[in-house]
Amino acid sequence: MNDRTTTSDIGLIGLAVMGQNLVLNMADHGFTVSVYNRTTSKMEDFIARCQAGEPSAERVIGHADLGAFVRSIKRPRKIVFLVKAGAGTDAAIAGCLPHLESGDIIIDGGNANWNDTIRREKELRAKGFEFIGSGVSGGELGARFGPSLMPGGSKKAWKSLEPIWRAIAAKVDPKTGEPLEDYAPGKPITKGEPCTAHIGAGGAGHYVKMVHNGIEYIDMQLICEAYMLMKTLLGMKPDKMSKVFEDWNAGDLDSYLIQITADILQQRDPARPKKFLVDSVLDTAGQKGTGKWTSVSALDLGIPANAIAEAVFARCLSALKEERVAASKKLKGPKDLKEIRGKKQLIESIHSALYCSKICAYAQGFQLMAEAQKEYDWKLDFGAIAQIWRGGCIIRARFLQKITEAYAADAELPNLMLAPYFRKALHKGQDAWRKVVSLAVRHGVPVPAFGSALAYYDGYRTAVLPANLLQAQRDYFGAHTYERTDEPRGKYFHVDWPEKDRPQLEM
Amino acid sequence: MNDRTTTSDIGLIGLAVMGQNLVLNMADHGFTVSVYNRTTSKMEDFIARCQAGEPSAERVIGHADLGAFVRSIKRPRKIVFLVKAGAGTDAAIAGCLPHLESGDIIIDGGNANWNDTIRREKELRAKGFEFIGSGVSGGELGARFGPSLMPGGSKKAWKSLEPIWRAIAAKVDPKTGEPLEDYAPGKPITKGEPCTAHIGAGGAGHYVKMVHNGIEYIDMQLICEAYMLMKTLLGMKPDKMSKVFEDWNAGDLDSYLIQITADILQQRDPARPKKFLVDSVLDTAGQKGTGKWTSVSALDLGIPANAIAEAVFARCLSALKEERVAASKKLKGPKDLKEIRGKKQLIESIHSALYCSKICAYAQGFQLMAEAQKEYDWKLDFGAIAQIWRGGCIIRARFLQKITEAYAADAELPNLMLAPYFRKALHKGQDAWRKVVSLAVRHGVPVPAFGSALAYYDGYRTAVLPANLLQAQRDYFGAHTYERTDEPRGKYFHVDWPEKDRPQLEM
Repeated sequence: MNDRTTTSDIGLIGLAVMGQNLVLNMADHGFTVSVYNRTTSKMEDFIARCQAGEPSAERVIGHADLGAFVRSIKRPRKIVFLVKAGAGTDAAIAGCLPHLESGDIIIDGGNANWNDTIRREKELRAKGFEFIGSGVSGGELGARFGPSLMPGGSKKAWKSLEPIWRAIAAKVDPKTGEPLEDYAPGKPITKGEPCTAHIGAGGAGHYVKMVHNGIEYIDMQLICEAYMLMKTLLGMKPDKMSKVFEDWNAGDLDSYLIQITADILQQRDPARPKKFLVDSVLDTAGQKGTGKWTSVSALDLGIPANAIAEAVFARCLSALKEERVAASKKLKGPKDLKEIRGKKQLIESIHSALYCSKICAYAQGFQLMAEAQKEYDWKLDFGAIAQIWRGGCIIRARFLQKITEAYAADAELPNLMLAPYFRKALHKGQDAWRKVVSLAVRHGVPVPAFGSALAYYDGYRTAVLPANLLQAQRDYFGAHTYERTDEPRGKYFHVDWPEKDRPQLEM
Repeated sequence: MNDRTTTSDIGLIGLAVMGQNLVLNMADHGFTVSVYNRTTSKMEDFIARCQAGEPSAERVIGHADLGAFVRSIKRPRKIVFLVKAGAGTDAAIAGCLPHLESGDIIIDGGNANWNDTIRREKELRAKGFEFIGSGVSGGELGARFGPSLMPGGSKKAWKSLEPIWRAIAAKVDPKTGEPLEDYAPGKPITKGEPCTAHIGAGGAGHYVKMVHNGIEYIDMQLICEAYMLMKTLLGMKPDKMSKVFEDWNAGDLDSYLIQITADILQQRDPARPKKFLVDSVLDTAGQKGTGKWTSVSALDLGIPANAIAEAVFARCLSALKEERVAASKKLKGPKDLKEIRGKKQLIESIHSALYCSKICAYAQGFQLMAEAQKEYDWKLDFGAIAQIWRGGCIIRARFLQKITEAYAADAELPNLMLAPYFRKALHKGQDAWRKVVSLAVRHGVPVPAFGSALAYYDGYRTAVLPANLLQAQRDYFGAHTYERTDEPRGKYFHVDWPEKDRPQLEM
């Protein structure tokens, strides 16, 4: 094992697949990286594997001793932690602290909850250290060749990390926003616009990463509903649907998730090669993570991100497999349905429903971030965030370029749906979208995300919602008071409502 | 001020309206009640008002000194706290503790979060005290003449509190489940079935109260959507709609909230007597409380309570009044709509939509409690809970009797929708329900709760949801593995998916 002193550009602790790949990515870009793992054999295996086949192996320096690991890094030291989020992160950082010196920079690249990141940043700042909580998106492959990186922390710390983070991030064509993906081990992409930027102070990076994941949930759910409709209403086979998604991937919906859906739907089942794999996969999904956090944060901040929450609840419902199978034999659906005609037109309508719903879902995600920045005193650049998501990450899509453009044209845009491009798309697609939801509703096909996104669109463009009745109810039973349409906000009124057939309370 | 020693049956701290009314209720039922308030003048005002006009004034004993207040109560002492939830409760209890003796019982009647209740119960038990967290529902009038009471805590503590709690609770006819409401100050109802029972240990009472409030949110939202449809699609005036709600109150939907809606819709505007008040009330509602907690708990426990969450999000959206007004001028709705015919039939269909949605919403609330009891190790009696809600509280309804009967017939009912009575109602109403949602969707009227409840119904009765595609996606981009339909649960599979146009990762 090498042991050079004070020559590494950065250190990384935690050599699971994500950590290993991030190290190789940094080494490919010319940075010397010290690595450490609590279980030394993992580090040794990794180093051996690097030396056996990685072009940049010489820039990966393994350390079995934590102190030596720390001392091998140039000051101010930058140490990336890629360990299990939660208590694991706290323990790993605590173990490292005695070896660090004032001004050193700790970077948490795990899927931390932003509240933990805010807390850690404060605690470490009080001890003289810098702390960056950085969202890392794109899975294993992203980490290896170009992830989307969402760092939050002080500007000073970012300045120090920036050259490395910009070098290893995914790159996109600055004009088209298309990801540049012509890379290989040892041959990293060095041109193009990097998918990273300073998100903001404290927990901003991990918060934005969380919203990214919440959007990932709804993106996936919307695709599932499109698939469900084609399967149920049109009886289409997976390979036929694959073709549809391939077509869609050439247009407005061009994105990683649409592309992999096309791949998935033509995949044969390894266990039964005559069948399509998707038909053998069990329809139960878990949800315990960031999609849930996003929904909870929306509830806490009072932002109507209903479509994102529906995507989480759809997973919850999918998990009740045995209950659903039993219920399917007892709870009936609609009867005497008309035959569906116009297959081609319906597929086009489903495309519109998916695209319009996607606009609403992203609008909710960006509304949520806009509210969060007030709550946490961040200053987020929404155009830059959309830009960062154009490459490397799961939700990368041509669509994001349009979001960047929308915020470039109007940084104070109150809602993404109001940007001319998206407004036009909604106006154009809404008839088909309504038709699809209406058809699904009448045919008993659950489309919670299509439907809730539409309710959001219709609610947001409704000047007078029925909450006037609700406020009157609250004043009736709880004397909660109400405001009036013809009086200034903040003036509260109350009526002594009649409690019919009940004695009146005098006091 | 009286100061008798050790003669009071119970004490109460916190003399805001709810506290005052609960005291008068207890006094009316023959209990002697010591009362204390941090601000002594409030206590003195209350005592003076009692003596000026309350038939049971002699049984209300005011104390200016906390020690004397405590000593005036028979042991084991029962002291009800009705103070501001949160830190206020902790402070009030802490102030009282030095005067208490081992075995004394503290009862929190505020709107506490169940997690706080669990914590307080543990802390106080460690110090030798008993603690009951009791949901109190029904607003001011309920507190005065009969609230719905949901106590959680040890059985021993409950035995001690039970006679008082049963006496003061709302009463219902044991056969019909109808609330008995022929009461007046000094003339309490002593017959009938009391709307209280021991809910369970620790935070069970406050948890059930929270779910009650979550259900209250969705009940109100469903009524709002029915109102919105009649107003928007049929152009009905408030007094005409009032008649419809009055009719509905004579049938399956018979409930307090339907009744007050009928009252509200015929209420003239005090400021403009020619107009109806509801038309002058501003359509913005707040949400920061128990509806949000219910949705967050559903997300945490993985229960698909989407309709309840939609009711919370609908309030969030209502709060964005200025944004909505601005958006209403920019975001268009559907064009070239057909005229709506068959007004009477549509009103009947809206009734079905409301009733079916309500069944789904309650099913979600009860599913949530069923999961919570596993999480927190409670043993909830769902029939008894529905029974407790039949009187006193905001969601009281004939409907609840049917829930009690459903759980009496099958205590292990997996979902309320499967009970024969509700299943029949859903089968009967679903065509009209689908018609209403479909019509709303096509006409651009937002009905998030009707729609999400229907998506829940359709999702729950769907044996195969599209989550198979979702699991394949997760395996594709994150190697998260999947289960198979033809293999036992808990066996996980992975495919090496092709990453098209991207270099393959070897390691």
